[in-house]
Amino acid sequence: MEFVTGLKCVFCGATYSTRVTYTCPACGITGMLDVQYDYPAIAKHLTRRSLANRKEFSHWRYRELLPIRKDAVLPSLPVGWTPVVQTDSLARHLGLRTLYLKDDGRNPTGSLKDRASAVGVVKAREKQHKIIACASTGNAASSLAGMAASMGLKSVIFVPERAPEPKVTQLLIFGATVLRVRGGYEDAFQLSQSSCERWGWYNRNSAINPYLVEGKKTVGLEICEQLDWQVPDWVAVSVGDGCTIAGVWKAFHEMKTLGLIEGTPKMLGVQAAGAAPVTTAFSTGEPLKPIEPHTIADSIAVGVPRNWKKAVLAVQASGGTMINVEDEEILEAMRCTGRLTGIFAEPAAATAIAGVRRAVEEGIIGRKASVLAVVTGNGLKDIRSAQAAVTKPFDIAPDGTGLEDILKDQGFVS
Amino acid sequence: MEFVTGLKCVFCGATYSTRVTYTCPACGITGMLDVQYDYPAIAKHLTRRSLANRKEFSHWRYRELLPIRKDAVLPSLPVGWTPVVQTDSLARHLGLRTLYLKDDGRNPTGSLKDRASAVGVVKAREKQHKIIACASTGNAASSLAGMAASMGLKSVIFVPERAPEPKVTQLLIFGATVLRVRGGYEDAFQLSQSSCERWGWYNRNSAINPYLVEGKKTVGLEICEQLDWQVPDWVAVSVGDGCTIAGVWKAFHEMKTLGLIEGTPKMLGVQAAGAAPVTTAFSTGEPLKPIEPHTIADSIAVGVPRNWKKAVLAVQASGGTMINVEDEEILEAMRCTGRLTGIFAEPAAATAIAGVRRAVEEGIIGRKASVLAVVTGNGLKDIRSAQAAVTKPFDIAPDGTGLEDILKDQGFVS
Repeated sequence: MEFVTGLKCVFCGATYSTRVTYTCPACGITGMLDVQYDYPAIAKHLTRRSLANRKEFSHWRYRELLPIRKDAVLPSLPVGWTPVVQTDSLARHLGLRTLYLKDDGRNPTGSLKDRASAVGVVKAREKQHKIIACASTGNAASSLAGMAASMGLKSVIFVPERAPEPKVTQLLIFGATVLRVRGGYEDAFQLSQSSCERWGWYNRNSAINPYLVEGKKTVGLEICEQLDWQVPDWVAVSVGDGCTIAGVWKAFHEMKTLGLIEGTPKMLGVQAAGAAPVTTAFSTGEPLKPIEPHTIADSIAVGVPRNWKKAVLAVQASGGTMINVEDEEILEAMRCTGRLTGIFAEPAAATAIAGVRRAVEEGIIGRKASVLAVVTGNGLKDIRSAQAAVTKPFDIAPDGTGLEDILKDQGFVS
Repeated sequence: MEFVTGLKCVFCGATYSTRVTYTCPACGITGMLDVQYDYPAIAKHLTRRSLANRKEFSHWRYRELLPIRKDAVLPSLPVGWTPVVQTDSLARHLGLRTLYLKDDGRNPTGSLKDRASAVGVVKAREKQHKIIACASTGNAASSLAGMAASMGLKSVIFVPERAPEPKVTQLLIFGATVLRVRGGYEDAFQLSQSSCERWGWYNRNSAINPYLVEGKKTVGLEICEQLDWQVPDWVAVSVGDGCTIAGVWKAFHEMKTLGLIEGTPKMLGVQAAGAAPVTTAFSTGEPLKPIEPHTIADSIAVGVPRNWKKAVLAVQASGGTMINVEDEEILEAMRCTGRLTGIFAEPAAATAIAGVRRAVEEGIIGRKASVLAVVTGNGLKDIRSAQAAVTKPFDIAPDGTGLEDILKDQGFVS
């Protein structure tokens, strides 16, 4: 907290001290707050040289830019500092010269959300809470359950009735108390909100907690340093709630403010066509209209995104744009990414790559541009969707009858 | 290959040049070969100081101890240098003072096998093969498919008829040609062997390929360096085929030979009670008797382990021992590891932890000993088994009726 100067409402612009816990007292629950820092003071500590000497290879290496105390107790599982992989074969496939993937599926519970949850559990401990809660069935929930376990905190997670059993299993393995609410996501969300208030638990819903996005931004901080301070022309991120892309942009903006990078990348926000209210708000300039989401990319199937404004402002400020892709394009992106790079991306992660492909085809991204796509989650988390992306294996007899024909078909023998 | 002096048969002791490709020409298919190095020459290059200055944070940082050329083309996905996590809460739970987990579920495709497959694809490329093959449904297969994709090679994978669909899905995502053999694992293995011979593919079956274990040993090399050259009293590894524990022991033996560590840890080899032919061979001193494996830990459900001799020799040389655990103990280890550390271990990985618990209870490991257990694979790879380990979530109404009672039961409110 050494360099945090306060909190500023994204809607009304009012500023507050950090004694305000969640949203803007004037605007109420829609008044998302943004953490403010003393950048001139940070610039004295955070330099290319000082970073090069740091031995902390996790997202905590950027502590000056995080809303945590110097003496904060940190989770034992290392979060972040995930690999950036340059991939020529996938670049060629998408019609590009230079493509990087930032593989955040390598985080402890397999998604970028670990960055946010890690900050969440540190804040919970700082505020002397023993219980932290959220509503989710996806990566936010599993990352919270895992990080809370790593930190010795209890987690309470509200899931909707139809939460897929494999996702619930992860939560239970991490020892979370899982409350399955007879209703949909909105019911689970409302009950988690009222329960946090009633029982005094720390609230990890990124819809209201201003600190989580600070964790998410570390993915952008790392990109700058891992690419040796030469940021790509475009950075593609899939968009559901809007919090992640806002965080990534904040990172680039901060790195520029600190003089660590020369220019900033354009942000490409990508939504699934069946769940695209943020793209609509971006294109029309009108306030967000809630929709009923329908897409295979469940991690970004958000009908009422609560960080939509932050996302729209981020993409605008970067000079970038937003586009949508169909589910079939997402499945194709899962296939070509797996086949050409060995990275298994979950559907929401592949959405960013599908968006790059479409943006190149539509001339939004030039073929000579350098592009980085953020792989936000590991495909192992949602094997069922992957099954929709692939064909069947070949059946053969144990004596090998028919094998030669299959191999000829595959071009393996002539 | 700079420091490789040759290959030595584990059975008959004959030595060969590296022109021999797979097993001992004298002993045939059971004659596993072991890679020999010029340790005095390596000792001049590989020192604590030289390692401290290396920027390569992957398992390739130990190149002098790997059977690859100086100019070898490496896969683009970083393998290894996975975290070692000290966990006081799990240590207490198991009755120990000091416990570390080496989380190899953080590898690219989620298991320790990525280390072996990475060496496999490098060797395939070195020998100018375009196709690499194996028989497996598990981690060996998915790691081969992923590493081959990362390297631009084709992979051909033979799976038995009953291969679980989620595991096959991973292979297909990575673009592997998956051949489902109407029969069991032994049929798939035999057809993969004859196909490699007939079509001239590179063979990644660790039953015969001498280089894969060299990849696996890097987990042990890393443990030495990550624990600042103070190795623990015991290192626990689950045992299926036997190749992994042999590799880990080879690492400690090499580090001692090079003068980088003072002593070596005792190895605790842990098998599932329903698939324990190696423990039986270790205890009786008799040759291995094949069995029909029955255990939830499918990655170590091996009835005819082909590296059993290497494993027995390794455990004996270390002064350690082997024990078995029941499936219920494995499930309990998955639960307590998840709840107390935030690490989701697959059943075969949790087997090592269950073994530590039993070894402490039986007085084999003293309560004051320091212990490291290798988490060989990520639980996300086998959600179905995890479902057997957990209880159900609590069902509640959207208005929160009944919530207070549940919270009282859980001890969250009084």
